[in-house]
Amino acid sequence: MLGAPYANAFVFPAPARKLLSRLRAMTIRLHRGDLPDDANLGDCVAIDTETLGLVPHRDRLCVVQLSRGDGTADVVQIAAGQSRAPNIERLLADPSVLKLFHFARFDIAVLFRAFGVMAGPIYCTKIASKLARTYTDRHGLKDLVRELLGHEISKQQQSSDWGSDSLSEAQLAYAASDVLYLHALRTRLDAMLKREGRFEIAQECFGFLPARARLDLMGWAEADIFSHQ
Amino acid sequence: MLGAPYANAFVFPAPARKLLSRLRAMTIRLHRGDLPDDANLGDCVAIDTETLGLVPHRDRLCVVQLSRGDGTADVVQIAAGQSRAPNIERLLADPSVLKLFHFARFDIAVLFRAFGVMAGPIYCTKIASKLARTYTDRHGLKDLVRELLGHEISKQQQSSDWGSDSLSEAQLAYAASDVLYLHALRTRLDAMLKREGRFEIAQECFGFLPARARLDLMGWAEADIFSHQ
Amino acid sequence: MLGAPYANAFVFPAPARKLLSRLRAMTIRLHRGDLPDDANLGDCVAIDTETLGLVPHRDRLCVVQLSRGDGTADVVQIAAGQSRAPNIERLLADPSVLKLFHFARFDIAVLFRAFGVMAGPIYCTKIASKLARTYTDRHGLKDLVRELLGHEISKQQQSSDWGSDSLSEAQLAYAASDVLYLHALRTRLDAMLKREGRFEIAQECFGFLPARARLDLMGWAEADIFSHQ
Amino acid sequence: MLGAPYANAFVFPAPARKLLSRLRAMTIRLHRGDLPDDANLGDCVAIDTETLGLVPHRDRLCVVQLSRGDGTADVVQIAAGQSRAPNIERLLADPSVLKLFHFARFDIAVLFRAFGVMAGPIYCTKIASKLARTYTDRHGLKDLVRELLGHEISKQQQSSDWGSDSLSEAQLAYAASDVLYLHALRTRLDAMLKREGRFEIAQECFGFLPARARLDLMGWAEADIFSHQ
Amino acid sequence: MLGAPYANAFVFPAPARKLLSRLRAMTIRLHRGDLPDDANLGDCVAIDTETLGLVPHRDRLCVVQLSRGDGTADVVQIAAGQSRAPNIERLLADPSVLKLFHFARFDIAVLFRAFGVMAGPIYCTKIASKLARTYTDRHGLKDLVRELLGHEISKQQQSSDWGSDSLSEAQLAYAASDVLYLHALRTRLDAMLKREGRFEIAQECFGFLPARARLDLMGWAEADIFSHQ
Amino acid sequence: MLGAPYANAFVFPAPARKLLSRLRAMTIRLHRGDLPDDANLGDCVAIDTETLGLVPHRDRLCVVQLSRGDGTADVVQIAAGQSRAPNIERLLADPSVLKLFHFARFDIAVLFRAFGVMAGPIYCTKIASKLARTYTDRHGLKDLVRELLGHEISKQQQSSDWGSDSLSEAQLAYAASDVLYLHALRTRLDAMLKREGRFEIAQECFGFLPARARLDLMGWAEADIFSHQ
Amino acid sequence: MLGAPYANAFVFPAPARKLLSRLRAMTIRLHRGDLPDDANLGDCVAIDTETLGLVPHRDRLCVVQLSRGDGTADVVQIAAGQSRAPNIERLLADPSVLKLFHFARFDIAVLFRAFGVMAGPIYCTKIASKLARTYTDRHGLKDLVRELLGHEISKQQQSSDWGSDSLSEAQLAYAASDVLYLHALRTRLDAMLKREGRFEIAQECFGFLPARARLDLMGWAEADIFSHQ
Amino acid sequence: MLGAPYANAFVFPAPARKLLSRLRAMTIRLHRGDLPDDANLGDCVAIDTETLGLVPHRDRLCVVQLSRGDGTADVVQIAAGQSRAPNIERLLADPSVLKLFHFARFDIAVLFRAFGVMAGPIYCTKIASKLARTYTDRHGLKDLVRELLGHEISKQQQSSDWGSDSLSEAQLAYAASDVLYLHALRTRLDAMLKREGRFEIAQECFGFLPARARLDLMGWAEADIFSHQ
Repeated sequence: MLGAPYANAFVFPAPARKLLSRLRAMTIRLHRGDLPDDANLGDCVAIDTETLGLVPHRDRLCVVQLSRGDGTADVVQIAAGQSRAPNIERLLADPSVLKLFHFARFDIAVLFRAFGVMAGPIYCTKIASKLARTYTDRHGLKDLVRELLGHEISKQQQSSDWGSDSLSEAQLAYAASDVLYLHALRTRLDAMLKREGRFEIAQECFGFLPARARLDLMGWAEADIFSHQ
Repeated sequence: MLGAPYANAFVFPAPARKLLSRLRAMTIRLHRGDLPDDANLGDCVAIDTETLGLVPHRDRLCVVQLSRGDGTADVVQIAAGQSRAPNIERLLADPSVLKLFHFARFDIAVLFRAFGVMAGPIYCTKIASKLARTYTDRHGLKDLVRELLGHEISKQQQSSDWGSDSLSEAQLAYAASDVLYLHALRTRLDAMLKREGRFEIAQECFGFLPARARLDLMGWAEADIFSHQ
Repeated sequence: MLGAPYANAFVFPAPARKLLSRLRAMTIRLHRGDLPDDANLGDCVAIDTETLGLVPHRDRLCVVQLSRGDGTADVVQIAAGQSRAPNIERLLADPSVLKLFHFARFDIAVLFRAFGVMAGPIYCTKIASKLARTYTDRHGLKDLVRELLGHEISKQQQSSDWGSDSLSEAQLAYAASDVLYLHALRTRLDAMLKREGRFEIAQECFGFLPARARLDLMGWAEADIFSHQ
Repeated sequence: MLGAPYANAFVFPAPARKLLSRLRAMTIRLHRGDLPDDANLGDCVAIDTETLGLVPHRDRLCVVQLSRGDGTADVVQIAAGQSRAPNIERLLADPSVLKLFHFARFDIAVLFRAFGVMAGPIYCTKIASKLARTYTDRHGLKDLVRELLGHEISKQQQSSDWGSDSLSEAQLAYAASDVLYLHALRTRLDAMLKREGRFEIAQECFGFLPARARLDLMGWAEADIFSHQ
Repeated sequence: MLGAPYANAFVFPAPARKLLSRLRAMTIRLHRGDLPDDANLGDCVAIDTETLGLVPHRDRLCVVQLSRGDGTADVVQIAAGQSRAPNIERLLADPSVLKLFHFARFDIAVLFRAFGVMAGPIYCTKIASKLARTYTDRHGLKDLVRELLGHEISKQQQSSDWGSDSLSEAQLAYAASDVLYLHALRTRLDAMLKREGRFEIAQECFGFLPARARLDLMGWAEADIFSHQ
Repeated sequence: MLGAPYANAFVFPAPARKLLSRLRAMTIRLHRGDLPDDANLGDCVAIDTETLGLVPHRDRLCVVQLSRGDGTADVVQIAAGQSRAPNIERLLADPSVLKLFHFARFDIAVLFRAFGVMAGPIYCTKIASKLARTYTDRHGLKDLVRELLGHEISKQQQSSDWGSDSLSEAQLAYAASDVLYLHALRTRLDAMLKREGRFEIAQECFGFLPARARLDLMGWAEADIFSHQ
Repeated sequence: MLGAPYANAFVFPAPARKLLSRLRAMTIRLHRGDLPDDANLGDCVAIDTETLGLVPHRDRLCVVQLSRGDGTADVVQIAAGQSRAPNIERLLADPSVLKLFHFARFDIAVLFRAFGVMAGPIYCTKIASKLARTYTDRHGLKDLVRELLGHEISKQQQSSDWGSDSLSEAQLAYAASDVLYLHALRTRLDAMLKREGRFEIAQECFGFLPARARLDLMGWAEADIFSHQ
Repeated sequence: MLGAPYANAFVFPAPARKLLSRLRAMTIRLHRGDLPDDANLGDCVAIDTETLGLVPHRDRLCVVQLSRGDGTADVVQIAAGQSRAPNIERLLADPSVLKLFHFARFDIAVLFRAFGVMAGPIYCTKIASKLARTYTDRHGLKDLVRELLGHEISKQQQSSDWGSDSLSEAQLAYAASDVLYLHALRTRLDAMLKREGRFEIAQECFGFLPARARLDLMGWAEADIFSHQ
């Protein structure tokens, strides 16, 4: 359902077809260029991005997905050449809003390159999982959601043309699914981190993420700057 | 020459033989167990360690070398089983003294494991070199000293029995040589980092080193915690 | 249905069995040795070849498939030892006819070796895909047809005995399927290339393909002639 | 000796020391920012560049070396942030001047990134060597100069700080040595290419170099765009 | 069914759901901290352990499973920080009780690290399989149980959070399944080892396992101490 | 059905169960120690062997399967320690009987080691396939039977305990299936070899197989004796 | 010294310079196109070839060196495009003359491709060394000559331009040195092969060499046709 | 000097030439077939072997070297086909004589294969070095002798023809040098092992060596039987 603050947004109809069945009655708000001015995403927002590929200097930002953790998602299409998105920028920079990502390193670099704003403070579910789930080496979002939340999410649209002017329903559903579970994952991962006494080291790792992303953009993407090599 | 504060220290005789010729009249003060109480190493001290190997849970700390950058070195032998060295600990923890290392990650982990003190603040010439000397992938101490300072240092004793009760002259000369050049390297590297606008990112990397060392000791030594894998 | 210009050609019956069901009522014209004299393939023809393998000096050309993009295909069997096919040669050399291939490098080398004619001008859907679809590293024909056209094509007969005197129905259907989609793919890929400003660089790459194929035949097949090695 | 057209250039003194002995009485003209307006480099100029490293988006152009093949070299220092060098730009773009490089792909990308001008026409001694000298896989400049010209050149300064404000004599001598032999190499390589019937394919490869360099800058540096992968 | 000696133990209900169907009416006794005092596991006990991961110095012991080979299993949860379990310790050290493991090397190291007791005497079904089943390189427990006993066991819960305070039914069923088959496997493997004259060499390998586990804990986990390297 | 010459042989009942359904009414004659004296396998016999593994000096011969190409198979169990089998030996050495194998190199080495007789003359369907089927790199028996004969054979029992005193029905069916198709494969492969002018080179390769097997047994199993290394 | 039968041959002067000193007073007869009609090379001739590289379909034969084992060598330059050399062809095909090569596989393929004659009978010192000298994996000609004959030969000219019209003295000396030692090596290797009972298997390997060379030319150069892959 | 018990042994003359200079006045006693009956090698004997290579089933034992640690060596040539050497066998089996080897695993397997006697008790300087010298990964005999004893030994003759009927002086000197230092190395390594608390684990490793060698001969030479794979 489309809430008042998003009057001019396209509301993605509750999926009826088989492909989308697992996203039951999910509400997706689609925007072009930026979040609406009156969007209220709370003090802890899950964020993910879709780009044209993994090479930062080549593959532009196409979509930013956000969720306040209430089962709804805002999907913002970014135009080719667009270099400002004031509402998103304000949110990224807001020190009172925690930004949840899965593999934040990539997303915050992409967002910094697109809009010149370094996100913070940050929580990264991939790093949290590496520190908490020592019993496995599978730390993909799909793995986390399956084991910790008991859901199956599809990654089939991950490699698709996010630069297309009109995204397909499957793309929208996929994009949204990447931010709908991060709040719940954080709750589970924090409990494990605390149980094993690794909560503080996780915070220190999160704290270095902006520097790590800056190194990526500056030309050290391939290097583990801390390695002996 | 043996200075007053180190009255009970063994002074390594100025090397006469060919092997040691390049360390001309170098003054090395040898201590057992700790620095003397009245040691004064200034506000910027170069530190290196020698261990029985590279496996932290197995290979104990044997030697700590320190230099205030005046061409002299203090070499402290650490006994097997020793878990305290108050003067060294105080120095490591002193927030007003910058600690210079080459590949600090290893040394601060070793020192933390030996004495329970995490060193700080830190400057690492290997990281500085990776950020400043983009024109090469050789960031060993020997490489830095050769290119930036025009000296040749020998690494021949690097793999020797540092747990031996009495170190050879060659070992002492080698141990000292690892701390004698760090101040000069820092000067050169800082100039390059500033020239290329990378001084700040270097500081951020140095700042994460204690967390990186803690990850090593906690069991993530093999992992780049920030990698996608 | 068999059109008039192909009076002496064998017409492959519309497939009835399950295996071929996805090629609904596809018209395949089978020829021996060359295209018929009155074949008219338009100004943009999709071409593919089947050989006895991937070693140019060993594995001879067996089949040339062509389509004008109207959903029908001409499949020409080439006899062992055959070194001329005047109608095909004329088509390959005709500067007013664009030749579409998927991985043209291989096919134009095979055709040049068989008939001594270098094809041109050329469009290669694999190169176009590498430049346009930066969000994936899957650039096989099957991948392109699935994502961009929503069809599934089978590659099961790819490795089969194309030197056999009588090709099976499955082989014919497979051979045809490799040229039926290239026109539609080109349309989609050109739109993406233009959207991202990569249309010109794609043309430059197509332009080098004859030289690249000649290098393959001259003995540099393994080398990237432009690499630093 | 310093010729009239270069009145304001620093003339590097004929090297006296052992290190430089093999560059007998070589004349090197050092310039800052651009070639002098009245420089005359003939219709065939050897060009090489020195940068801060091999990552185009990170490592800036520091030095451009040029030689008209008369045993003298012009060495131009490029300042950090400099984005124009009108005389060099004019030379690069001049269709009547052949530009000789060793591994042109890198240099023309660097120059294009620095000044926005794509060099042409081009001759690349590395590609020529790969096509002519099939009896070896050593196609470094040092290898070519040794085998074809009987000289030994040193590559010791290759990895040094070319961003330094004042280059050392060793750096200048090294920089110059990279352009002094290209004319002679071209003569030898062209003779071999013609003898083996590979002169035309070499021209075709040279012709694709601007596109190859553009692909590097656009984000396909790692890919052989023509490979099957 | 819950036997008298285990009055205060939780009895896992006979699984009704599909997931657990293959463990028909299996009896699992769940304990916290240690075996009950009156547990009687016979003179040949199958043992397996679950930990938080594979890094001994990081990943603590969470569960010890034991079976006397009668189709029932005792599952003992070990608390974080727990360093004693007298009944388990007594069993491990009892020279009159043969301990069966699959890949004993890992389990006896984990148990030694947790409780300071080296298990013995030992039988390892993985080593027995390597010596007896030369016709395959698949020596996982699942492979052995399938081929030699005709059962299928699931490894799906292998990588799950064994440190959780309350284990799921699926975890309990998995944990138990790892000890229920070892007695039967030993019978089959011993017959094969004797048939091929390899029973004695197997005993010698079992005899070295405590030393091998000690090497792992001492810091040689990565090394084959007997290799030439 | 059991023919007269094999009066004392066990006749494997025509398989009724699903697993064996594809071997319709196949006749398998099981023997212990040798072929019966009056066995008549014609002038072209397909042979396969089963062993305890792939290490010749360790893993003994367990089973020899033979077929005259009439859809029936003789399966001979070889006892541990057995070193003679006169009827098999006579057959292997008979110069008037062609022996068909798939990957003869392994089988003739195993048979030579077991009985001291080098088989000859030999036809190897794997080598024939490598020379004829250049369009694929899949030359397993299963692949050949599928593509050239349109049957599916199972390899599931390939890694099973062939040293067992009583073989299972599944093992017998599998063992037989490895010799039932070799005659038909030879017919198909010979046609292809002749069509492509490779029949003679195939014969030369077959001729070297005894030497190749002898090299394996003499200690050069890992080496390609003809390689440059 | 120039013997009568070679009246029109160029006689290479006894080397005076340091480079050639180890070839003391070696007599080298240089010919163009073929051996002289009256050349008498005995019943056992050492042969080596020089080409433009290692790709048979690309890199033509340039030089054939021959020696009858008397310390002199005939060096025959082969012109580009030359396809006949009657005297060499007669020698290659003469069944009464044993041809000695080091790594015959390459040379006989090159000679067959150049002149259409397959050499035979053949002796290959590399294969003999692999079978006799099991104590090493160094089977280069240089290694054999050093260990078995106590001489050092230079391989420096191995990679040089053998297609040049006029070969340098260093090239001629190198070319000759490759055939001067083969007779002596054969004597030593045969003694070792006989001592260890490997003389017969060596003959069998030599016998397969023409087939192996034919496989190389037919397109199986990369494959070990006898491997399981 | 030749001692009385070795009256019929050849005494190797004190080396005069440069090559052997470092074995000053070393006494080597050469024997054929076995040690003399009255040889007295004390209760701790260093042993090494030379073979025709590293493949046990192919490469026979040629030489056994022994030393009682007094700077002299007995070198025993073993004939091809020899399967008994009573005095050596008695020594190997004598439980009161400790046998020192460097990489015992290989030598005791070779000796067991040659004479059917498993050596014991054993001390292996390579294993002792791996456990004591954790600061390096260089555990070759040459490395040990250099670091711990300050001598340089040559390995140049390591790969030579030990099956030759008459060994060269260089071979004899090399063979002897491999046993002359083992006593001194043991003293140094034992001191280090005790200092670090690793003496007992070393004994346990030595104790498994006969089983490890037996595994090698039985066909598990490639496998680390204790690995998880």
